[in-house]
Amino acid sequence: MIADVLIKNASELVTVRGARGGPKTKQGMQDLGIIRNGAVAIEGAEIVAVGDTDEVLATIKQARTVIDATDRTVLPGFVDCHTHLVFGGSREDEFIQKIEGRSYLEIMQRNGGLFSTVEKTREALAFPRALMKRAQAFLDKMLAFGTTTAEIKTGYGLSTESEFGLLNIIAGLKESQPVDIVSTFLGAHAFPKEYKERKADYIQLVLGMLERVKAEGLAEYCDVFVEVGAFSPSEARTILEQAKKQGLKLKLHAGEFNDIGGAELGAELGAVSIDHLDYISERGMELMAEKKTVGVLLPGVPFHLMTNKYAPARKLIEAGVPIALATDFNPGSCPTLSMQMIIALACRQLKMTPAEAINAATINAAYALDRGDKVGSIEVGKKADIIVLDIPRHQQLPYWFGVNTVAKVVKNGVITYPP
Amino acid sequence: MIADVLIKNASELVTVRGARGGPKTKQGMQDLGIIRNGAVAIEGAEIVAVGDTDEVLATIKQARTVIDATDRTVLPGFVDCHTHLVFGGSREDEFIQKIEGRSYLEIMQRNGGLFSTVEKTREALAFPRALMKRAQAFLDKMLAFGTTTAEIKTGYGLSTESEFGLLNIIAGLKESQPVDIVSTFLGAHAFPKEYKERKADYIQLVLGMLERVKAEGLAEYCDVFVEVGAFSPSEARTILEQAKKQGLKLKLHAGEFNDIGGAELGAELGAVSIDHLDYISERGMELMAEKKTVGVLLPGVPFHLMTNKYAPARKLIEAGVPIALATDFNPGSCPTLSMQMIIALACRQLKMTPAEAINAATINAAYALDRGDKVGSIEVGKKADIIVLDIPRHQQLPYWFGVNTVAKVVKNGVITYPP
Repeated sequence: MIADVLIKNASELVTVRGARGGPKTKQGMQDLGIIRNGAVAIEGAEIVAVGDTDEVLATIKQARTVIDATDRTVLPGFVDCHTHLVFGGSREDEFIQKIEGRSYLEIMQRNGGLFSTVEKTREALAFPRALMKRAQAFLDKMLAFGTTTAEIKTGYGLSTESEFGLLNIIAGLKESQPVDIVSTFLGAHAFPKEYKERKADYIQLVLGMLERVKAEGLAEYCDVFVEVGAFSPSEARTILEQAKKQGLKLKLHAGEFNDIGGAELGAELGAVSIDHLDYISERGMELMAEKKTVGVLLPGVPFHLMTNKYAPARKLIEAGVPIALATDFNPGSCPTLSMQMIIALACRQLKMTPAEAINAATINAAYALDRGDKVGSIEVGKKADIIVLDIPRHQQLPYWFGVNTVAKVVKNGVITYPP
Repeated sequence: MIADVLIKNASELVTVRGARGGPKTKQGMQDLGIIRNGAVAIEGAEIVAVGDTDEVLATIKQARTVIDATDRTVLPGFVDCHTHLVFGGSREDEFIQKIEGRSYLEIMQRNGGLFSTVEKTREALAFPRALMKRAQAFLDKMLAFGTTTAEIKTGYGLSTESEFGLLNIIAGLKESQPVDIVSTFLGAHAFPKEYKERKADYIQLVLGMLERVKAEGLAEYCDVFVEVGAFSPSEARTILEQAKKQGLKLKLHAGEFNDIGGAELGAELGAVSIDHLDYISERGMELMAEKKTVGVLLPGVPFHLMTNKYAPARKLIEAGVPIALATDFNPGSCPTLSMQMIIALACRQLKMTPAEAINAATINAAYALDRGDKVGSIEVGKKADIIVLDIPRHQQLPYWFGVNTVAKVVKNGVITYPP
């Protein structure tokens, strides 16, 4: 048999296999399914053989492209399951004000915060091509750092016109660059200023948008920001129940700054993932474990915001909650595009082991997007999204921090990085 | 006039000028000498014109290579003034033990710690070409992340043969790759195991090595690790005074885990820099400010070691100590090669502003290597070591963390990255 691509002699082929039917939990998150001196064969965009190099070479005699991974570690591409990648402007000035010790309130008064991004995004939507080009550049950098699938949320529009503008840009990104995109409608990111005194009206507006989202097929998920100052659990319930009726899958932002019961609500409604969880109750953990709701941890946020209040990852894992990791890429609370950086933070700040962090950034993140059967591991039949790292052991991935250990990215069976 | 290289239209040309005769302190560290719509002209390896683009184009009519830096920020290359770049092995297993909560003592008992690197380095010195090749790969990655000058210390040999083996590799690196190298002899990194009960003998050995270092011209600096369990101030004094007599310049590691008076000693002896300073007395600060001794802060260390005990940078700056930043690249306490990562940590953990951090990573770091007249800023007559970042403002350098914002590196007047 002649393959299109053959990766051979990998010092460690980290398959991340072993999660049929659901995300990994507890001890399962320690298992990476490593094959020493491993090989992978690819036909088209599909993995057709995985094993040790001699074994694979016994059936695959030739390949059009051969990648020698001697002394290198091979992993499935990272799945970044929580981003807000399409936005206008940037908020480095607000970041500097935080360094200088200004309070959140002062920053809001100086016109910082989420609403400054809403303003800039609405302005940017007047030039959709430029906004798309910028998002493509972000995705190019993500890919260079090993991400092959990314979720993108709306939520910096907060009006029908601008939310659909964002959804259309996300739809455009699916067609115009190689990273696989999952689209999430987050009209309920915040109450926009113009609805500050008419919250019920905004909720009605969001319910209306949901119908159109479904009709136009523009999003797979509906997400709500459950937080003090954003949406209460009962407001979130109204929106999420309607989304469910429309056939959308559910996600929640919960416990970023306060625990107001978002985890309990999300588990009850059958959300696919609940994200942040820096604050979460014991009951919330139990429910998530019971329902196998993926907990998406975002350690870049406390790092960037300098709060140093990180999610109780060890407790969550012990409770049996399947954990995923993501960047939360956005201009306010986490301007990083690198899943390698997130893994480095997860090990140091969440006390996750490298094996747990890699499972969380690949297969469990794929399950957080309901794609655990398609991506997130190196197994026969899965998509050929594979990264080759210039390190001999996976343990070195979080260890050599702050740089890019990715030497090659194979996306859909094609070497896409370096370009 | 026809230049070899012309960089034009820089959104911000960050010259970092304004430090003639000594490093920047206090308010001076806020000044980056920014020229909007800036240009730099280069002839050979030297900067020949700096100004706004129209002004420079009035005299430089043509150039063999033109770099259009529209929407980009241009900086002097980073100076990484504290690294231990040549070593055998790596210590990710020890890092994982730390994540799992094992104590320093347990890790030492499991054969971790500095001595495990000494053992691996001595073994690796049997194959000097392989060790050199590895160091070159590290330097290539440093350069790709914007570092154009790097200091390298010995100190993982701790025997005459192995320390000189390391010095010879450092000498080889000067000739074999583009990053400028400054060589530091750190025979007094630790008392080697075989001298554990004969400390005075090891000090005599180091004094002997110093003579040979000078005779063979293999190092510009002598450094001593002043710390509980390493060298006491009086032991350090013996070595540093002898080094001074040999004509070597002085550096000290002080206050990494304990303050035992290293800062006071270093200032008294006229050290060029004193490095770490996570622990330092008021008196130490005053003396360093008085002598203009550069304080080299290494925030990657508390980050990697998860101690979260960072140097009192704001107090040091207020006291008038000139501050530089460096990676401390080494396998035990800081395995990062990226000065961008260090700047990101300096802003978040040391509460330095982006302007202070950039001054600290360029001109003040150059002064920490006594090269403030040659590199570290973009000024006529200086070496053409220049980096072009894919961001429109310098404030975004620490903001977009965890990635590489360097689009191009000009080293000695030649575009060296991307290769």
